Amino acid sequence: NMSTEKCFAKGSPAPGPVPKDSIRLYSMRFCPFAQRARLVLNAKGIKHDIVNINLKDMPDWFLERNPLGFVPTLETSAGEVIYESPITCEYLDEAYPENKLLPSSPFGKAQQKMMLENFAKITPYFYKIPMGRNKGEDVSGLECELKEKLAKLNEDLVNKKTKFFGGDSVTMIDYMMWPWFERLELFELKHFLNGTPELSKWTERMLEDPAVKATMHSVDTCKAFYKTYIEGKPNYDYGL
Amino acid sequence: NMSTEKCFAKGSPAPGPVPKDSIRLYSMRFCPFAQRARLVLNAKGIKHDIVNINLKDMPDWFLERNPLGFVPTLETSAGEVIYESPITCEYLDEAYPENKLLPSSPFGKAQQKMMLENFAKITPYFYKIPMGRNKGEDVSGLECELKEKLAKLNEDLVNKKTKFFGGDSVTMIDYMMWPWFERLELFELKHFLNGTPELSKWTERMLEDPAVKATMHSVDTCKAFYKTYIEGKPNYDYGL
Repeated sequence: NMSTEKCFAKGSPAPGPVPKDSIRLYSMRFCPFAQRARLVLNAKGIKHDIVNINLKDMPDWFLERNPLGFVPTLETSAGEVIYESPITCEYLDEAYPENKLLPSSPFGKAQQKMMLENFAKITPYFYKIPMGRNKGEDVSGLECELKEKLAKLNEDLVNKKTKFFGGDSVTMIDYMMWPWFERLELFELKHFLNGTPELSKWTERMLEDPAVKATMHSVDTCKAFYKTYIEGKPNYDYGL
Repeated sequence: NMSTEKCFAKGSPAPGPVPKDSIRLYSMRFCPFAQRARLVLNAKGIKHDIVNINLKDMPDWFLERNPLGFVPTLETSAGEVIYESPITCEYLDEAYPENKLLPSSPFGKAQQKMMLENFAKITPYFYKIPMGRNKGEDVSGLECELKEKLAKLNEDLVNKKTKFFGGDSVTMIDYMMWPWFERLELFELKHFLNGTPELSKWTERMLEDPAVKATMHSVDTCKAFYKTYIEGKPNYDYGL
């Protein structure tokens, strides 16, 4: 189901139309936001193809579909285009009603969205801290803030007494948060989980999830890509 | 339906429980984000009460309900608490299915969310420009950017050939955008609509909407409140 094709850059011929019974994801293999959509496509068993985009040198036909030029972007066989990772994921859950990932009750949905809004304040630390370290800056203040926020997530799980953030099985919010936890080792932040045992157990449970397994790269592959990324010459096709 | 009660500050006695057939909105009379929820409550004809909060000196019982301490916050008779304006509005549209404001199709909903995401990049200008002017800063760069973004909204309406942003009748996206357009005169930005005739017509059509009329304050009242706000001593009860 998952394309392993090399990325499309400016000048690449456009891919053919999206087949009637399928949906297309424009992605970048190492992007955590695009991984959210890949997790949802996998978890729901939705037939799809993936077109990887060279984000440093985008094809014109991609920018025609999404002038903002970011991934994930979905394209349906009817030519409908959807972007912004939470919007793509919610669209997929509504358009493909099998294996629902969001709760059916309005309040249950609202709770997941509030958790996501809270998590959106956490993701920037996963860039600011490694980038600051690379530049030799003092990131101890940022590290303290991130630790506090992870402690709060740990407390949420303790209070809920559930295995995952939306209950005892994986739901949408877990997939929305996962890509950053998968990268803890890459960003040398893994020891931050030492003080958050429930959150740590959650990451172990997530590693057993089939969609998580299907969308994951090895830490070595991620590290090698990340090295090319911080050097300003991202090798989007690393490992293919 | 709409409370005209003075705001509750720290030390105020807590309001009674939310009645079984009603929902409560914690609000601030002049807040554009809270107005989004007021518009939706009005447009859908949902029975509700409003508890206005002194945002400079919040009651402890409000912070117990929403530790982030912002409005709009909803509370149901079951004690469920919902916040973040887009989340409150979508919750109301789902929990009260009469007079739907969001389209029923997954793609229609996704389109409204993409428009809202785009508009979220515009709202900051409505603060930055007046605040910059107050400080005597050069805001011409910000003004150019805002004009470009309004021109883009105008173009959207031209391309759609519809009276409102979601079709020929008012839908959720119009209510989500309206509070900032209502404040154009207050912020001395009204002349920015001179170059955007379709957007200007949209504002005139919105002024005819019953929910818009029901939630609006006069420009003089807004100006008087705003004056106390920029002086650092907001009079939340101005005009009561």
